[in-house]
Amino acid sequence: MHVVNTADVLFEQFSERVAKNTLRKTLVSDKDGSKLFRLRYYCIEPQGQTPFDIHDYEHVVIVVRGRGTVLSKDGETPRLYQVKQGDVIYIRSREPHQFINTGGEKLEFYCFSTTH
Amino acid sequence: MHVVNTADVLFEQFSERVAKNTLRKTLVSDKDGSKLFRLRYYCIEPQGQTPFDIHDYEHVVIVVRGRGTVLSKDGETPRLYQVKQGDVIYIRSREPHQFINTGGEKLEFYCFSTTH
Repeated sequence: MHVVNTADVLFEQFSERVAKNTLRKTLVSDKDGSKLFRLRYYCIEPQGQTPFDIHDYEHVVIVVRGRGTVLSKDGETPRLYQVKQGDVIYIRSREPHQFINTGGEKLEFYCFSTTH
Repeated sequence: MHVVNTADVLFEQFSERVAKNTLRKTLVSDKDGSKLFRLRYYCIEPQGQTPFDIHDYEHVVIVVRGRGTVLSKDGETPRLYQVKQGDVIYIRSREPHQFINTGGEKLEFYCFSTTH
C-alpha cells in the first residue's frame, strides 16, 4: 500500500504542444507498482489549457475546483462540455479532448489514465 | 464523453459481509462504455467500515472528507495506515484492505477499480 497526500507532491510545468498555464503532478504510476493506473493532478490557470489529445487509453477526470470547458470533436464537429467542481468525466479511448479554463479561478482536477 | 456530478447520483446502502454504516454510489462503469475503469464513491459514518477485502485487481482511493484507518495485513501481521482528506491510496492486486472510520465525522472517498 502506498499513501501520499496530494498537497505534498510538487507541481511541474506542463508545456507539451499547445498546453498553456498548466501545472501537473503525478500521484500514482508504475513507479508505485501499479500495473494499470496512472493518476495525475492538474491545475490550469484562467485562460490556460491542456493540449488537444487523442490516444488509445481511457480517462476518468474528477473536477475538485473551479469550472471550465472540455472541447471534443465528433468528426469535424466540435462538442463542448461545461464542467465544474464535483463532476466526473469519462473519456473513451480515441475520444478527442482538451481542457480549457473558461472560469475566473483555478481549474483543478484529478486525471486517471489506464496505462494500456 | 460522459459527465455526471457526484452529488447527482443517489447513494445505496452497502451491506455485504461485515460492511457497516456504509453508503456507496457508482459513477463510472462498463455501463458508460468503460473497458477498464469502475469508479465508486463511498460515505462511511463514524465507527462504520467496509468489508475486509482481497481481490485480483488494483484500487486507487482519493479521500475527500474526514479521516480514518485502512487495515491491511502482511502475512498474519496487521498493518494500519492513517488516512485523511487529500490522501491518495494505491492498493496492489491481492493486497488486503478494510476502510474504518475512526474519526468523528463522515469519511468520504472516491474508489477506482480496474475491471480486470
